[in-house]
Amino acid sequence: MAPQVTVDSINPKVIECQYAVRGEIVILAQKLQQEIQAKPEAYPFQEILYCNIGNPQSLGQKSITFFREVLALCDHPAILAKSETQALFSADSIERARKILDQIPGRATGAYSHSQGIKGLRDTIAAAIEARDGFPADPNDIFMTDGASPAVHMMMQLLIRSEKDGILCPIPQYPLYSASIALHGGTLVPYYLDEATGWGLEVSELKKQLQEAKSNGITVRALVVINPGNPTGQVLAEENQKAIVEFCKEEGLVLLADEVYQENVYVPEKKFHSFKKVARSMGYGEKDIHLVSFQSVSKGYYGECGKRGGYMEVTGFGADVREHIYKLASVNLCSNITGQILASLVMSPPKVGDKSYESYIAERDGILSSLARRAKTLEDAFNKLEGITCNKAEGAMYLFPRINLPKKATKAAEEMKTAPDLFYCRRLLNETGIVFVPGSGFGQVPGTWHFRCTILPQEEKIPAIVTRLTDFHKRFMNEFRD
Amino acid sequence: MAPQVTVDSINPKVIECQYAVRGEIVILAQKLQQEIQAKPEAYPFQEILYCNIGNPQSLGQKSITFFREVLALCDHPAILAKSETQALFSADSIERARKILDQIPGRATGAYSHSQGIKGLRDTIAAAIEARDGFPADPNDIFMTDGASPAVHMMMQLLIRSEKDGILCPIPQYPLYSASIALHGGTLVPYYLDEATGWGLEVSELKKQLQEAKSNGITVRALVVINPGNPTGQVLAEENQKAIVEFCKEEGLVLLADEVYQENVYVPEKKFHSFKKVARSMGYGEKDIHLVSFQSVSKGYYGECGKRGGYMEVTGFGADVREHIYKLASVNLCSNITGQILASLVMSPPKVGDKSYESYIAERDGILSSLARRAKTLEDAFNKLEGITCNKAEGAMYLFPRINLPKKATKAAEEMKTAPDLFYCRRLLNETGIVFVPGSGFGQVPGTWHFRCTILPQEEKIPAIVTRLTDFHKRFMNEFRD
Repeated sequence: MAPQVTVDSINPKVIECQYAVRGEIVILAQKLQQEIQAKPEAYPFQEILYCNIGNPQSLGQKSITFFREVLALCDHPAILAKSETQALFSADSIERARKILDQIPGRATGAYSHSQGIKGLRDTIAAAIEARDGFPADPNDIFMTDGASPAVHMMMQLLIRSEKDGILCPIPQYPLYSASIALHGGTLVPYYLDEATGWGLEVSELKKQLQEAKSNGITVRALVVINPGNPTGQVLAEENQKAIVEFCKEEGLVLLADEVYQENVYVPEKKFHSFKKVARSMGYGEKDIHLVSFQSVSKGYYGECGKRGGYMEVTGFGADVREHIYKLASVNLCSNITGQILASLVMSPPKVGDKSYESYIAERDGILSSLARRAKTLEDAFNKLEGITCNKAEGAMYLFPRINLPKKATKAAEEMKTAPDLFYCRRLLNETGIVFVPGSGFGQVPGTWHFRCTILPQEEKIPAIVTRLTDFHKRFMNEFRD
Repeated sequence: MAPQVTVDSINPKVIECQYAVRGEIVILAQKLQQEIQAKPEAYPFQEILYCNIGNPQSLGQKSITFFREVLALCDHPAILAKSETQALFSADSIERARKILDQIPGRATGAYSHSQGIKGLRDTIAAAIEARDGFPADPNDIFMTDGASPAVHMMMQLLIRSEKDGILCPIPQYPLYSASIALHGGTLVPYYLDEATGWGLEVSELKKQLQEAKSNGITVRALVVINPGNPTGQVLAEENQKAIVEFCKEEGLVLLADEVYQENVYVPEKKFHSFKKVARSMGYGEKDIHLVSFQSVSKGYYGECGKRGGYMEVTGFGADVREHIYKLASVNLCSNITGQILASLVMSPPKVGDKSYESYIAERDGILSSLARRAKTLEDAFNKLEGITCNKAEGAMYLFPRINLPKKATKAAEEMKTAPDLFYCRRLLNETGIVFVPGSGFGQVPGTWHFRCTILPQEEKIPAIVTRLTDFHKRFMNEFRD
């Protein structure tokens, strides 16, 4: 008998799941890159400019020295006592590595940890949350994970029983959410962010969509909020967050707060507030609201995507439900220890007086101020293009400009059975090597078209991107203008 | 409105899922440990002896120096060019770190990699598989994962559509499989290993169970084989493997080969053969059989559980199905880079002539020969106990002795509404601090009772374990003997 597993016989939830950030456009980009390597003159550009994914170090962002020193010492503690180590590593990285090793049972960085992560590291993280928010945090509420993605999957797995269970998700959204909901067989209940008010999140819209879902027989279980926003880059105002908390409390929804961009705020008039801080400041405690906050080492100024570190802080669930979350964590044993250590470091970086403090601050602020400049330059460039409008990137790592495509272009796309935004992005890639992700991968108001562009290419490359994009866009519009 | 998420309203698949290796007994052990720390005289023992999980470094096993040197250098490449580094690190670890960094685009160990893992590292792994098996391996067939567990989940997610889809699993089995099948809503189709023939795997039993499942309306999609066996420790003979391959080919089943203990074979008369090698040696290629092999950095002599590295080699699927596996890998972006590097290292350790070769071999063989001695000592100790019989541990890290419990003991257990094997293990823990996992967590022939014991406590602790266990067992039997 021949092999039996065909596309017709695999799990239809897998078929349905989409993940645009590494979807068609990116696969095409990888193909072009290989072609260019083999034959440099194959395309009118020598380099693929990846603006598709929040992966800073792949584009040349340097890692923070202190963090890497500590990781190296924890990987190979045998050198801690050697005199040469003093010359190679900063004094406080040596001290921190020793402290972390003392927190690990048997100093065994190669052992599975507690299913939630090493207790001492969770203590550090809880203390850092407490310092950030001004409200208590419990290390037993921390579940350390391989980046934020597995944490999101874990909550979806817990909450979704069938397609009758719904999750309120922003549109546009980061496609991890739609992918995870599809894989777990639930229903994505969309709520639209208001592009006209800088991607505003209106509680009236939440209420409307919740009612509509209910009337369709959907039990809405949770609300996803991404703040700062991905792909939209907005930072929520505290008053807005209060209204969201109130809504979740009233409706008994789990508030799934994606707060992985908490360090990425670029405008002085906005500030990051965690949803837990907001809820606690309203007087709401454990018994009032289910609240899960996701954090990751992949974003911020550190951008350590490849280390796959992160955690979720889980509050407001009963002990019996918590036991099941613990069990889910246990089935995968634990998250990787390097990522766990790094998560503790990003939450507790060098402090005033530490030997590395000044160099750390210089590295951190260098990255964040450059990101702010890049965001502004790209935003301005988009807003100069015919038919394109782009909201301000207040935070995160993305712009999500809207493109008013000429009818001729949408028609040309339709003839190729391609979404118009994909049509634009594919042309852009083929002609310039620039990789944007079509808005359809994130969701958008029907009939509108967007794309997501990261602000991550190194600063010296931004002018070339702007030029190439501008030239391409002019050609495109000249070809298709109605 | 008060919080709404209760145990009655979470996903019933999560409720159903069990994971004994970190289940009730282990939670009790952690509680006892805390009590002992607070009050050393609380129990008649000063230490919890964890024999519940294959986690060697938590029990004092040292990591392999060369591997950790390379990881440290890859974490902090800035020191590669420093003269002090020459004094601290072996010359070949420096060379290997440079080579690995060259294989990583932009030398960025902090970037998300290709969804399947860094191509250069997959090249290394494919070459190592080829050298091991004598048959070609394709780097594009390698999917690097955070340990083997996520790889198993990925395949279950792909294959299981509903409870009508079945997966043939050994009984006893490693509970990851039952947990993953439960979480994905499939049906575990058991096949029993024959304890009387050293946990033999009979194809007649596979056929019988397959037919029975079919007659119950189950579509069996895959066969899980764990070789060397967990929790059973047997190593399959090549002829036996051929018959299993033939069976999978005939029935169009995916062969899911858990080969994470491939380095853990302790008896001279047995040798590890990968299922891919066996299939290819029978002349079966890509078009003949679906074959997935799982490997991990957590086991072997390296035991680097906390690094969460591993891979699966996926062969025999069409390009369209492969695309969906790739998409599943992409939703989580990539596995952690430290684990990826380590996976390449364990598959390609120092070679004759390399500076670290001799110390590496000494470390490796020291660990493996000690494991073999520990396995034999524990096996002999179990076989001396009244009512206990224990098969030989040919490989892996476990013994799975059978205990013939007196009727009085099973009755006492029943009165406490406890499974008799759990009753025994709980008493053992409370009286000695030794942590075994009851056989019911792995599955066993109804009416028989077992427990799993790892061979991992450090060698100098084994005599104390044997004494404590023997004394306990005598007391237990004296109390309950019929």
